[in-house]
Amino acid sequence: MNILVTGAAGMIGRKLTARLLADQALNGTPIDRITLVDVVSPEPPAGFAARVATAACDLAAPGETSKLAAGRPDVIFHLAAIVSGEAELDFDKGYRINLDATRSLLEAIRAAGDYHPKVVFASSIAVFGAPFPPAIPDDFALAPLTSYGTQKAIVELLLADYARRGFLDGVAIRLPTINVRPGKPNRAASGFFSSIIREPLAGQDAVLPVDESVRHWHASPRAAIGFLLHAASLTPDELGSRISLTMPGVSCTVGEEIAALRRIAGDKVAARIRREPDPMIMRIVDGWPRCFDARRATALGFKAEATFDDIIRVHIEDELGGKIAA
Amino acid sequence: MNILVTGAAGMIGRKLTARLLADQALNGTPIDRITLVDVVSPEPPAGFAARVATAACDLAAPGETSKLAAGRPDVIFHLAAIVSGEAELDFDKGYRINLDATRSLLEAIRAAGDYHPKVVFASSIAVFGAPFPPAIPDDFALAPLTSYGTQKAIVELLLADYARRGFLDGVAIRLPTINVRPGKPNRAASGFFSSIIREPLAGQDAVLPVDESVRHWHASPRAAIGFLLHAASLTPDELGSRISLTMPGVSCTVGEEIAALRRIAGDKVAARIRREPDPMIMRIVDGWPRCFDARRATALGFKAEATFDDIIRVHIEDELGGKIAA
Repeated sequence: MNILVTGAAGMIGRKLTARLLADQALNGTPIDRITLVDVVSPEPPAGFAARVATAACDLAAPGETSKLAAGRPDVIFHLAAIVSGEAELDFDKGYRINLDATRSLLEAIRAAGDYHPKVVFASSIAVFGAPFPPAIPDDFALAPLTSYGTQKAIVELLLADYARRGFLDGVAIRLPTINVRPGKPNRAASGFFSSIIREPLAGQDAVLPVDESVRHWHASPRAAIGFLLHAASLTPDELGSRISLTMPGVSCTVGEEIAALRRIAGDKVAARIRREPDPMIMRIVDGWPRCFDARRATALGFKAEATFDDIIRVHIEDELGGKIAA
Repeated sequence: MNILVTGAAGMIGRKLTARLLADQALNGTPIDRITLVDVVSPEPPAGFAARVATAACDLAAPGETSKLAAGRPDVIFHLAAIVSGEAELDFDKGYRINLDATRSLLEAIRAAGDYHPKVVFASSIAVFGAPFPPAIPDDFALAPLTSYGTQKAIVELLLADYARRGFLDGVAIRLPTINVRPGKPNRAASGFFSSIIREPLAGQDAVLPVDESVRHWHASPRAAIGFLLHAASLTPDELGSRISLTMPGVSCTVGEEIAALRRIAGDKVAARIRREPDPMIMRIVDGWPRCFDARRATALGFKAEATFDDIIRVHIEDELGGKIAA
């Protein structure tokens, strides 16, 4: 099996690559070759090197996606994206990467001829916008309130049409907000959901810009990798015509996040969160989804954590070697 | 007021133009200038000529939309489209006109600077695809089952983002199947819904390719023009963030259409319908919406016919001078 990962240098891309290399297989099929691309060349992973190719590649530049399609990957994990905050600040850049580059990839697949890969697209719950019912059903309207969400929703529609027309097999998974994101904050407005857990666990202060009553939809990086791998295993028959799936997650408030942190790491750690209300972030977050009834994805076998405590434990295991800064 | 109509040579475009010229105003504001464009130059209407410009224009050709935006129309009725059947047969042409040309128009508006027109976009109930609840609510998923529906859904999303970002005022109205379409059939797969009424009333035989139990969502051409004019009157405050509206209509079966025809025109006219089941058309129609709960549009003042009998009467009045071929 030949696999392409776009956005491979990002947090999810690196974790996905590590998992694929550890398994040396995708859902039981041995991997012959992995191609990792990103706007900066992804770090070549240790071991398995003969079968890994890495390249710096601007997917929106002419001819780039044709070159990738010419490699005829069996499975494409399309993770490359400009994140929400940046897509809102730079309208042209967001559309160029999140929409045009992705469409160019789909067109390159169509143009390749006698080629029918599986495309796993990392979409986002940002395709939805308020007002919401208490639990958002699978057949709820695409009504994004950001340019990022608009671009993700448009790609979902394109992918479904390309799949329906027989140019590829497609599946789009709408990732919850990934929590706890390791490493440095990115430009996503959702960053604080992670930083109020990550920084205190590392012995540092964190800023909470919204009220504790803010409810949101979370899953761990480990769960996200599981979603991507499982998505790649689904057949067109299992998916039917609606190939965009809202992933399961944990619905909890910021207050419940903090309570879980206190249960697991103690009062001293939880006290490292400073309240600094930010009206702009509060306004953005106000339009975000709070809870889903992710029935189809659950029936199809996707699995997230059961509680926010589990999400914190995954972070401590996977990122902190089991240790908390006292 | 300065108005631009794209797709002005089409059936809806000609009726909209005729209404604007008859009123010499749009929702009470006198019209100074109307520009009519289509891929073939629209027929220059009689009277009012000094204020009407017509042009043949391929909206997808470089520079064309910039020229239109340079005319700084206050209101743009964007009706130009490749119809469903043709967009399904010619993948590239459908995307080039229905998506790329429209996006180019939005970009030309954004690039014009200090310019903020009202864009009224003729969308379609084809943005929805089966399976459906008995009455489709306003917040139902965009899950089209045709390339045409995909392209309309994508433009809805783009228009909403351009409106949200402050580049224009936008409103998208999802037109029901227009019934009774006057004139020759176009390449829409929905053509039979009209032809089984139109042809018998004109003394000709018509072919019914589906079962009488097929239920669908209808409004007259006269109602469609009313929708477009009313949409242009709505303020951003009235619309809120969800600027795409499902228009009201009449939900009825083909059998109910025929019963209405029999009531209005008699058995002899209704007997001009020949049953010739067409499996391909039956399969396409099977994925189409049957009934909506068009609550928001109704609350905002959009009005359709109350019964299919009314739809037939509108056709007889507007197209047949009140006369039926016995």
